[in-house]
Amino acid sequence: MVARTIAAIERDGQRDEVAVEEPMEIRVDGQALSVTMRTPGHDEELALGFLLGEGLIDGVRPAGPTEDLANNVVEVGGPLTRDPSARRFYTTSSCGVCGRGSLEEVAVNAEVAAPGPVIARDLLADLPDRLRQPSFARTGGLHATGLFSPEGELLLVREDVGRHNAMDKVIGRALLDGLVPLHPRVLCVSGRLSFELVQKAAVAGAPILVGVGAPTSLAVDLAADRGLTLAGFARGGTVNVYTNPQRVGQ
Amino acid sequence: MVARTIAAIERDGQRDEVAVEEPMEIRVDGQALSVTMRTPGHDEELALGFLLGEGLIDGVRPAGPTEDLANNVVEVGGPLTRDPSARRFYTTSSCGVCGRGSLEEVAVNAEVAAPGPVIARDLLADLPDRLRQPSFARTGGLHATGLFSPEGELLLVREDVGRHNAMDKVIGRALLDGLVPLHPRVLCVSGRLSFELVQKAAVAGAPILVGVGAPTSLAVDLAADRGLTLAGFARGGTVNVYTNPQRVGQ
Repeated sequence: MVARTIAAIERDGQRDEVAVEEPMEIRVDGQALSVTMRTPGHDEELALGFLLGEGLIDGVRPAGPTEDLANNVVEVGGPLTRDPSARRFYTTSSCGVCGRGSLEEVAVNAEVAAPGPVIARDLLADLPDRLRQPSFARTGGLHATGLFSPEGELLLVREDVGRHNAMDKVIGRALLDGLVPLHPRVLCVSGRLSFELVQKAAVAGAPILVGVGAPTSLAVDLAADRGLTLAGFARGGTVNVYTNPQRVGQ
Repeated sequence: MVARTIAAIERDGQRDEVAVEEPMEIRVDGQALSVTMRTPGHDEELALGFLLGEGLIDGVRPAGPTEDLANNVVEVGGPLTRDPSARRFYTTSSCGVCGRGSLEEVAVNAEVAAPGPVIARDLLADLPDRLRQPSFARTGGLHATGLFSPEGELLLVREDVGRHNAMDKVIGRALLDGLVPLHPRVLCVSGRLSFELVQKAAVAGAPILVGVGAPTSLAVDLAADRGLTLAGFARGGTVNVYTNPQRVGQ
């Protein structure tokens, strides 16, 4: 069975194409952990990247995973590194929640990214154009995440209707290939930059995260706190650098 | 305490503005149910819209809700209409999961939308331009959902870093104002059209959902199954109608 990422539909009396969205269940040791809506394909990677980003596995590849594509299930061997039912709650002094001195994340303690690399500003601004999104061109409906070398070489790219999923897939593939922590590589996303994406990048050890869109306040806070270089609005030859600009050269 | 939707930050040595993202906890009868990342403001609406879309309350306003903005908590009175720990799992024949004849959603049985209204195609295509997004213009980081009359009058608009949240806020406000089911009004979103957004619109009884972006396969399937008119790519004076075109006039 081949994963289907694009579906043909009829609209206004003519043929059209849309991005496929389907549920996928992640099971660990036979127990259902999560159901996510995703674009089929690279499901094993998605499961591993998700578990790593949630702090449920460490950087070591777990037993399995095995895909049951016909039933949209991925099974991963345990045990997990923390109780998945434990509550995740984020607080930050700048959001006025807790008044504590620094951003604190109860469940997932992301590594502080190591110093290097330095990437040229022009190259950083150009990375989204290097993502190459064949399915997006056909459907307009898919997010992409790419993993780049500091020299701008595209090492990995994954697409999904969910932007979190696209990053999970890249990180899951990198985990399978022994590339986690991702240092000194650069993550690039086709959309906006939320807290969750920075969290995933930081947990995977990526020193630089760049996106086409805007960051949120909490994304900037977390990136600053974890030593990650966060850059947004990378389009038309320019890019905004929000945190840790020492990794961006002229 | 006033909800803060835009935060000033410094980047590249100059002042800039970003959309605020903060965690919010929804409690029902004192028990924590969910933590969502959202843009502060209209938190009570967000909680109600979320609970309605999940099938956890019906169309009747529950006791409360009360906001504790300083602590980012919204408390809603129970009881809920279903067990929140029950698993939600979606299946559709077209995705090859189950081979059954129709799309089935275990937890939430959305109402089939009633027949009318009919909206002119030009007007439908123009709705996203009528959303007016003051905060988006400043930050580029917020999604919007609007509720329109069939004549194109904007009745309600809400913004959020999460597109699901923006729709939850509109539906929650409509619930408080006695406007649920939303029939015969039109929901309009600033982004793409996923399964979850169609699900929320259908549960709230909206007959028409239009967006600036592309729909997913499952969004189209669900809209067809529930009798909802789904339209996408509403920009530059044109719009694609994917399902139930009888509600779109010339």
